[in-house]
Amino acid sequence: MGAREYTADAGGVGRGTGCCPLYHEAVELVGRRWTGAILQVLMDGPLRFSEIAQAIPELSDRLLSERMKELEARGIVERNVIPGPPLRVEYQLSRMGRELEPALSELQRWATRWLSRRVRAAV
Amino acid sequence: MGAREYTADAGGVGRGTGCCPLYHEAVELVGRRWTGAILQVLMDGPLRFSEIAQAIPELSDRLLSERMKELEARGIVERNVIPGPPLRVEYQLSRMGRELEPALSELQRWATRWLSRRVRAAV
Repeated sequence: MGAREYTADAGGVGRGTGCCPLYHEAVELVGRRWTGAILQVLMDGPLRFSEIAQAIPELSDRLLSERMKELEARGIVERNVIPGPPLRVEYQLSRMGRELEPALSELQRWATRWLSRRVRAAV
Repeated sequence: MGAREYTADAGGVGRGTGCCPLYHEAVELVGRRWTGAILQVLMDGPLRFSEIAQAIPELSDRLLSERMKELEARGIVERNVIPGPPLRVEYQLSRMGRELEPALSELQRWATRWLSRRVRAAV
């Protein structure tokens, strides 16, 4: 029983531990509706709001705006105002945001391996 | 503009693409409330329902039961009945589930690096 409790010095996932609260926070942050998608399109480099919206057409402007504010407040995304005219606003990942790349790449790899199978099987 | 559209053969995250629908599905699946936590505690090996509940005390039995059914339906978790007496029911990750380990480990690493900082800063 006690063996399953979270130990703060456990480095990785699941070594006789419960669930690490920091990991829990991270997985729910990234998994928040559309957040993972926004992070993926920003991995390429800075984008304007309209460009993010174009890359994820299913996402409404209202919800995109909400998510961008959350990501900015978290320190994951930076908002840069580029003086004009025309004045431009660009969003880019901070270092904290860019360092999510390995986790998101691994998830992409898993998805390609396991979820596309099911799509192929259904065809 | 067209350069930001998703191209099916792009292997990784963000190479001049929009958001990959398989990745999107994966990130929202893993990020579903408590699912990431459940996957983390099962990385150690098979557990009974009550052991999972013990490892994640904030999670209600009702919601845990719902999540386990979803994960089973997805093929990520297998439910094994071990004949008794006493009869035991154990849950374990399928190969598909175990292969989430690299993604979840990377997320743990990111969380330890970036989210614990903020906790330390707040102390």
